[in-house]
Amino acid sequence: MLRFLIPKEGRFFEHFDQSADLIVKAATEFREMLKDLSHIESRARNIKRIEHDADEVTHATIELLHKVFITPIDREDIFALVSKMDDIVDFIEAASERMFLYGITSMTPEAESLADVCVKAAEHVREAVHSLKNLKNPEQIIKSCVEINRLENEGDHILRSGIAKLFREEPDTRNLIKLKEIYELLETVTDRCEDVANIIEGIVLEYA
Amino acid sequence: MLRFLIPKEGRFFEHFDQSADLIVKAATEFREMLKDLSHIESRARNIKRIEHDADEVTHATIELLHKVFITPIDREDIFALVSKMDDIVDFIEAASERMFLYGITSMTPEAESLADVCVKAAEHVREAVHSLKNLKNPEQIIKSCVEINRLENEGDHILRSGIAKLFREEPDTRNLIKLKEIYELLETVTDRCEDVANIIEGIVLEYA
Amino acid sequence: MLRFLIPKEGRFFEHFDQSADLIVKAATEFREMLKDLSHIESRARNIKRIEHDADEVTHATIELLHKVFITPIDREDIFALVSKMDDIVDFIEAASERMFLYGITSMTPEAESLADVCVKAAEHVREAVHSLKNLKNPEQIIKSCVEINRLENEGDHILRSGIAKLFREEPDTRNLIKLKEIYELLETVTDRCEDVANIIEGIVLEYA
Repeated sequence: MLRFLIPKEGRFFEHFDQSADLIVKAATEFREMLKDLSHIESRARNIKRIEHDADEVTHATIELLHKVFITPIDREDIFALVSKMDDIVDFIEAASERMFLYGITSMTPEAESLADVCVKAAEHVREAVHSLKNLKNPEQIIKSCVEINRLENEGDHILRSGIAKLFREEPDTRNLIKLKEIYELLETVTDRCEDVANIIEGIVLEYA
Repeated sequence: MLRFLIPKEGRFFEHFDQSADLIVKAATEFREMLKDLSHIESRARNIKRIEHDADEVTHATIELLHKVFITPIDREDIFALVSKMDDIVDFIEAASERMFLYGITSMTPEAESLADVCVKAAEHVREAVHSLKNLKNPEQIIKSCVEINRLENEGDHILRSGIAKLFREEPDTRNLIKLKEIYELLETVTDRCEDVANIIEGIVLEYA
Repeated sequence: MLRFLIPKEGRFFEHFDQSADLIVKAATEFREMLKDLSHIESRARNIKRIEHDADEVTHATIELLHKVFITPIDREDIFALVSKMDDIVDFIEAASERMFLYGITSMTPEAESLADVCVKAAEHVREAVHSLKNLKNPEQIIKSCVEINRLENEGDHILRSGIAKLFREEPDTRNLIKLKEIYELLETVTDRCEDVANIIEGIVLEYA
C-alpha cells in the first residue's frame, strides 16, 4: 500500500494549532461569562460548540495518526498532546455547564481570579504549541512551559484559599458545594495545561 | 530460553472476553439492585465477587503480557485495554458499595437511567471486545464504539441535569451529597467505557 | 554527539531512592500532624517543603531521561514510576494543606488509621524501590508489592466505612464535607502507592 507521507505530516501541526486556538477561545468565553452573569446560557452554548469543534479536531488528529507511517514527533507524544488539549476544553465546558445548570446568580472574586489564570495558561499553551512546528527557538517554548507551571501553582493557591473561605463565609452549604465544584473544575483546567506543558517540554528536550 | 508463543497468544483474546463478560455481569447486577432496593446487601456482595474475578483476569493478562515475546496486538494497547476494562468494574463496585454503606432506601429516576446507560454501554463494550479476535468485520466494531461514545454523552447529560435537579428538589443536603456521588460514579463508568472504545478504535485503525 | 552513558545510568536509581525516601518522610510527617493537632501549621509547612524537594527530584529524573541514550529500564517505566511517586507526595501534601486551611481542630480514628496505612504503604514503596537496582531478589520486591496492594484494600475499606460513619454520626454537614475530602485524599495516596507497585511488578517480570 502506497502512502503519501510528507504532505500529511504537516497537518499534525495544523491540528495542534487549531486545538490550541480553541482552548484560548473557550477560556476567554468562560471569563466573559463570569464578568456578566446575565448571559450564562448563551455563553454556555458557545462553549459547548467550541468543545464540539475541539472534539472533531482531536478525532481528526488521532485518525491521521493511524493513517501515516512517519510522524514528525513520537506517536505517543502526539497522542498524549492532543488528548490533554482536549481535556482542557472539556473541563472548561464542564465548569461552564455547571454555571448554567446550578442557576448561579452571583460569583466570587476567587472564581474570577481562577478564570483569569485559565485564560493566561491557555494563551501560553497556544504560544508553546504554535512554536512546536519550528523548534529553532526552544528557549521561548520552555519559557512558556515554566510560566504555565507557575500559573498552575497560582491556580492551586487560589483554589485552596478560596475553598477555605467558602467554609468560613458562605452560609448556604448547598451553594458552598456548587462553588467548590466550579473552583475545582477550573483548577483542573490549569492542571491539564500543566500536563500539556510537561509533554511539550519532553518533546523539546528530545528534538531541539 | 525457548518460549511456546503461538498457543499463548490466543489466550489474550480469551482474557479480554472474560473481562468484557464480567463488565456486563456487574452492570446488570447493579441495575437489578436499583430496581429492588430490598436486596442491596446481597447484590453488593455479588458485585464485590464479580469485581474480584475481574481483578484476577486483569492480573493474569498482565502476567501473560510479560511472559510472551510476541503479542497479537501492541503491548501498550493490551495493557491500556485491560486496565480500563478493570476500571469499569471497579467503578460499578464503588457505586454499589456506596448504595449499601450510605443506607440508601429510595432512588431517583436519574440513577435508574444512568444504570440503564451503563448496561447498554457494557453490552457494546462486550460486543466490540469479542469481535477483536476477528478483525474481518471492522465496521461492526466501529459501530459499537460510536454507540458507546453516544451513550457516554447521554450519561453525561443525565448526570448534569440530575445533579441540577438534586440541588433544586432534594431538601436533605446530606442525601444530596450521597446521590451526587453515586451519579458521578455511574457516569465515570460510561467514561471508562468510552476509554475502552477509543483504545479499540485505535486497534482497529491499526490492524484492520 | 558524544554522550557519557554509563555513569549517568546509575543516577536513575539514586533519583528513585531519593523520591521513595521523600514519600516516607511526607507520610510520617502527616501521621505526626494527626497525633498532635496543635502544630498543624508547622507540619504543613514541612510537608510543603518535602513536596517541593520531591518535585525537583522528579524534574531531574525526567531531564536525565531525555539526555541519555540508554536507560537501565524502559523509558516508559521510568517515566511512569517517577510520575506516580511524585503523585503520592502531592496527595499527602494536599491532605496536609486541607488540615490547615479547613481549620481542623479534632480528628477521627478513621483518619488516623488511614494515615497509618499511608505510612506503611510508603515504607513498602521505599523497600521495593530501593531493591530495584539489584534485581537478584525479586521475591522480596514482589512481596512488598503484594503488601502494598493489601494496604490499598485496607485503606479503601477504612475510607468507605469511615464515610458511612460520617453520614450517620457527624451532625455538622460542612465538617462532614471537610473530613470526607481528607479521607478521600489519603485513600488516593494508597491508590498511587498501588500504581507504583504495579509498575514495579511489571519491571520485575520484565528484567528479573
